[in-house]
Amino acid sequence: MWYRRALELHSRLRGKIEIRNKVRIRSMDDLSLIYTPGVASVAQEIARDKIKAYEYTLKHNSIAIVTDGSRVLGLGNIGAEAALPVMEGKAVIFKEFAGIDAFPLCLATDNKDEIISVVKAISPSFAAISIEDIESPKCLEIVDSLQEQLPIPVFHDDQHGTAVVVLAALINALRLVGKSVESARITIVGAGAAGYGIVNIISKYNKDGRFNPRNIIVLDSKGIISRSRLKHESNANMYKLKIAELTNTDDLNGSLIDAVRGSDVLIGVSGRSNLISRDMIRLMAKDAIVFALTNPEPEIIPNIAKSSGARIVATGRSDYYNQINNALVFPHLIRAVIDSGIKRIEWDMLVDVAYAIAEYTRSNRWFNERHIIPSIMDKGLSRVIISSIKAR
Amino acid sequence: MWYRRALELHSRLRGKIEIRNKVRIRSMDDLSLIYTPGVASVAQEIARDKIKAYEYTLKHNSIAIVTDGSRVLGLGNIGAEAALPVMEGKAVIFKEFAGIDAFPLCLATDNKDEIISVVKAISPSFAAISIEDIESPKCLEIVDSLQEQLPIPVFHDDQHGTAVVVLAALINALRLVGKSVESARITIVGAGAAGYGIVNIISKYNKDGRFNPRNIIVLDSKGIISRSRLKHESNANMYKLKIAELTNTDDLNGSLIDAVRGSDVLIGVSGRSNLISRDMIRLMAKDAIVFALTNPEPEIIPNIAKSSGARIVATGRSDYYNQINNALVFPHLIRAVIDSGIKRIEWDMLVDVAYAIAEYTRSNRWFNERHIIPSIMDKGLSRVIISSIKAR
Repeated sequence: MWYRRALELHSRLRGKIEIRNKVRIRSMDDLSLIYTPGVASVAQEIARDKIKAYEYTLKHNSIAIVTDGSRVLGLGNIGAEAALPVMEGKAVIFKEFAGIDAFPLCLATDNKDEIISVVKAISPSFAAISIEDIESPKCLEIVDSLQEQLPIPVFHDDQHGTAVVVLAALINALRLVGKSVESARITIVGAGAAGYGIVNIISKYNKDGRFNPRNIIVLDSKGIISRSRLKHESNANMYKLKIAELTNTDDLNGSLIDAVRGSDVLIGVSGRSNLISRDMIRLMAKDAIVFALTNPEPEIIPNIAKSSGARIVATGRSDYYNQINNALVFPHLIRAVIDSGIKRIEWDMLVDVAYAIAEYTRSNRWFNERHIIPSIMDKGLSRVIISSIKAR
Repeated sequence: MWYRRALELHSRLRGKIEIRNKVRIRSMDDLSLIYTPGVASVAQEIARDKIKAYEYTLKHNSIAIVTDGSRVLGLGNIGAEAALPVMEGKAVIFKEFAGIDAFPLCLATDNKDEIISVVKAISPSFAAISIEDIESPKCLEIVDSLQEQLPIPVFHDDQHGTAVVVLAALINALRLVGKSVESARITIVGAGAAGYGIVNIISKYNKDGRFNPRNIIVLDSKGIISRSRLKHESNANMYKLKIAELTNTDDLNGSLIDAVRGSDVLIGVSGRSNLISRDMIRLMAKDAIVFALTNPEPEIIPNIAKSSGARIVATGRSDYYNQINNALVFPHLIRAVIDSGIKRIEWDMLVDVAYAIAEYTRSNRWFNERHIIPSIMDKGLSRVIISSIKAR
């Protein structure tokens, strides 16, 4: 349904963003001020103290959206050029919702070390870096390495953004079904950047109680992630080891069927459509909560999940109720991070943001089982997210 | 005089350019068209044939302005952050005069191979690359390597832009003093990117005659560049070897004083203020032409050159007559190059552009010894430069 309209729009626009000059050149005097000789005095001021680039240039409000196109939307490894319209779309969202100047840099290399070198090299022009749609675990290694090496924050939407919206929705869903954070049994299907982020934010959550690591089970394509299982896998990456450390303290092993049995919450970030069957939902505890977040085709269609006994269902799609979408977080979050001079994205901060979004949602009259999280278009989000960070 | 005004302006603007959205997001439908799910169809079209990125994204009109800040204006190696306001100024000029979306990428590395890797990596987002203010001969090696490896044009203003404006001004100056291209004896002081570019464009010139390589003498800091001299220099770079090949066929050796004696034209691109003395001008031939192009302080002040016998004098400064400034060329040239799908900047093309600018200048009533080249603000330049390239 979108195909023809989207192609027509993109072919007409030839770029959803452009550069706009904030000054005009109407005379040689104008030119002498913004370029040589006038600009030389500005360059010399910054040469004396490079922090002044924030004061005199675009740096304070500019971010680079960086991808290698290796895992774009649900489309897989489509390459740098094909990732461009998607990254431009993100740039439009950054500007529209948060006034941030974001430029899409789609890289002609998918080599981890080269990507790290490139981002380090281009960093002087930017206040922050946003890493997007790079395959896992490469993206996690890149983000960790850059956070260590760069003096500016490195945001990773697949990891950080997803974690925030999922936690916000989860807090509210549990409240609606009257289950406690401590006792909730949670199954997370998918151990890529999103699964890793969700585990991290859940393990740091400390607002109305704490999640019990014993109750959190994560699965990858081979089944339940456990310490005993990983011991036998010589090639297990450090992010799976970290997941095993933070979850499943009973060291259970088994399949998805084993994990969902009696589960209160099932979160799908697997990248695999229709992975969850009716029978799996039927095995879950009463008043089950199902977030089937793979796009464009979720792990299970909401109607099917509902008719199989799930009480609260959410997806990543805008054409169903309960859309759990990173875009309601990332523009405002980055706005607050760069304005506050925060140099690193920390899980504690993301917990505060998720909690504030959940509280804000509950303060609205529209809050119910089909509206556990705000729409991207919600006008209150900006203030809520920004003040949750500034209050820290 | 510029110091306070320039700082005040830059501190107020905090960025002379910004990102502007060409679409608004007013509804979930808008969002679904420009981002997911709609954008997926556009991404898939480009994945099938990546040349379509020119049709559906910002690529067709975007360029990266790349520097490492190692030789910014006359300020030397001031680093990436300090180069930002200068590169932003260039971006403003690109947009104002030619509608091009240019983004400044100031790199945190000054390693040649790393700069090449970075530019290759970021190239998918851009229609062309503009290399700026990198020290010589590193910049020449970078540009040559990138031209070989990239499928998009790589423009080098210090080399290509300077060559075009100098040749245009030279053609007209020689006409005004009634000297022929064949017989003109030309001394070029400076063998960096600008000197190398001027030698290349002069050696390709073939419009109203050809320059005689015997009459072209280039000097670096050690004196006249000659084949015999370079034979004894184990570390002579390939660009000086190329200069020796294209000039000074009599294999003269000596100092600047030796070179200027009897010269008809003296072109200063040395980066050294006040290098040229009254006495040197007095040694030149009758009706001498002097282009003292080092900024902000030229090799000789115009009044001094004039009173020492020079007939036509030009500098790079806007506060003297005859400003020889790259900015009158580069926006229009890149506009024509990217619109015509030209994949490589060639000297033959630059000769055509210089000749067209010279002809256009002569067609104006204001053309005289103090107006041998148009102002940057000249409204006719765009059409002249673009049609000189499209006519090829």
